[in-house]
Amino acid sequence: MTASIIDGKAISADLRSKIANDIKDLQEKNPGFQPKLVIIQVGERPDSSIYVRMKLKSCSEVGIEGVLVKLDGKISQEELLAKIAALNEDSTVHGILVQLPLPKHIDEELITNAVKQEKDIDGFSELNLAAIFKKSASPKYVPCTPKGIVYMLEQEDVTIAGKNVVVCGRSDIVGGPLAKLLEKKGGTVTIIHSKSTPEQLKFFVSNADIVVSAVGQANFITGDILKPGATVIDVGTNYVADETKKSGQRMCGDVDFNSCVQVAGKITPVPGGVGPMTVIMVLQNVLESSKRAAGLL
Amino acid sequence: MTASIIDGKAISADLRSKIANDIKDLQEKNPGFQPKLVIIQVGERPDSSIYVRMKLKSCSEVGIEGVLVKLDGKISQEELLAKIAALNEDSTVHGILVQLPLPKHIDEELITNAVKQEKDIDGFSELNLAAIFKKSASPKYVPCTPKGIVYMLEQEDVTIAGKNVVVCGRSDIVGGPLAKLLEKKGGTVTIIHSKSTPEQLKFFVSNADIVVSAVGQANFITGDILKPGATVIDVGTNYVADETKKSGQRMCGDVDFNSCVQVAGKITPVPGGVGPMTVIMVLQNVLESSKRAAGLL
Repeated sequence: MTASIIDGKAISADLRSKIANDIKDLQEKNPGFQPKLVIIQVGERPDSSIYVRMKLKSCSEVGIEGVLVKLDGKISQEELLAKIAALNEDSTVHGILVQLPLPKHIDEELITNAVKQEKDIDGFSELNLAAIFKKSASPKYVPCTPKGIVYMLEQEDVTIAGKNVVVCGRSDIVGGPLAKLLEKKGGTVTIIHSKSTPEQLKFFVSNADIVVSAVGQANFITGDILKPGATVIDVGTNYVADETKKSGQRMCGDVDFNSCVQVAGKITPVPGGVGPMTVIMVLQNVLESSKRAAGLL
Repeated sequence: MTASIIDGKAISADLRSKIANDIKDLQEKNPGFQPKLVIIQVGERPDSSIYVRMKLKSCSEVGIEGVLVKLDGKISQEELLAKIAALNEDSTVHGILVQLPLPKHIDEELITNAVKQEKDIDGFSELNLAAIFKKSASPKYVPCTPKGIVYMLEQEDVTIAGKNVVVCGRSDIVGGPLAKLLEKKGGTVTIIHSKSTPEQLKFFVSNADIVVSAVGQANFITGDILKPGATVIDVGTNYVADETKKSGQRMCGDVDFNSCVQVAGKITPVPGGVGPMTVIMVLQNVLESSKRAAGLL
């Protein structure tokens, strides 16, 4: 058996068109409706600049106004907080995204929590996390990577309720929220983390219907420990040596694709799986925010 | 094999003495040091009155000043919020406990979140829950039942790191926070909930080194699905018909004690297991709060 490949590029391209059409429709019916995202970049990290550029490009493709506020790397925490406070008050702005990491002299948590919940389209604030965690609550925004993964699973008609789910990794951005979201969808979820033993990894993965790996370690999941027919979602972005490449390395996920594709039922590739979903969910969250602000949601 | 019984009464009595001695010592060295808990009771529910009385009695036993603020069941939400705001500002008050449930015209979540984080010794506020949930954060207060369970396990030298842990139930007060706390202690945790199938319950419980049940259903955990030697913690409080009792019913937990005691390594009884730990942790949290306020922590 060979797994069917979950095409993150196609799923995200589809959603991108939907978002673009939705915005166009809304603008025709509601003159003045204009979703707007402000990205705050502090300093000049080249990797951050690439991510910011990608997000701005995606915004323009769907009709979201994307604005980059680039600040000096030496800006004080107070000045940055004042900047965020002003954007919180600006009613034309629907999403505020602070590109991480921030310079070391700035408290990331403080800054992340300073973004008004209504505009926290990254969903990283404590109040948003609390709402994900609480059984009875629904968050205003689901963080983009977990949201993208749940959307993918739904698009692929993967049943979650009543299934065994393993989430490897417990970060505040991916593993933690995702485990809770899949539990809220009815999955029985086990979180594998750095203190889990190799025997535990093998035991739980070999009994899982859905396996998500977000640990940042190449070959963490191999075909020999998979349950036949399982759905495998690879969130990892790792680089391994590869002499056949000009750069001497190649990008890969946490999942040993070649062995897993023989055993799994469905599997995401890296690149082209989860990655494209994350960016598109930023747009989706900005759209939701602007609809909410306009009383259209 | 017969399990050893975890004696919640003895463990809590022990901790009670420690708290009382700690307060006495602190008062000798710091004249004016006086931990104070305010309990707000709205209305006259008889069960609430019993719980409140128990807590006040426990306070007086260890040297905590316990004050009951009893409010009319018809009080408006605004008046209740104003009352809480005043207590938030009162520096002689170290803990504020709003006895739940509140009358239906009052938004419990709003009220719970109105208690200042420093005085939220129940640990139910969203910011506290977020801190439990976040990998990198530590909550100011751990909710009393989960805190009592972790303390019990530690007193009984039960290893958590590297072990399979099953938590049945995912409430915001017990199951949810407890699962996260045990995960932070290194356990590999699976949450069983209302959407889990009987097969999933059996599969995960029969492979678990530690099983906690907090679902509120008698005989939910039976000996035939336990792993021999497992530690079993019973958080349930249920009433089942019993003709031999004057009241016609008897209190029991979620765990079928008679069959489980034959298989488990350690087990908590009901009553006399988790119950006594919860009240004592209210006192422990008030003590922590008063030490923090006095700069002694």
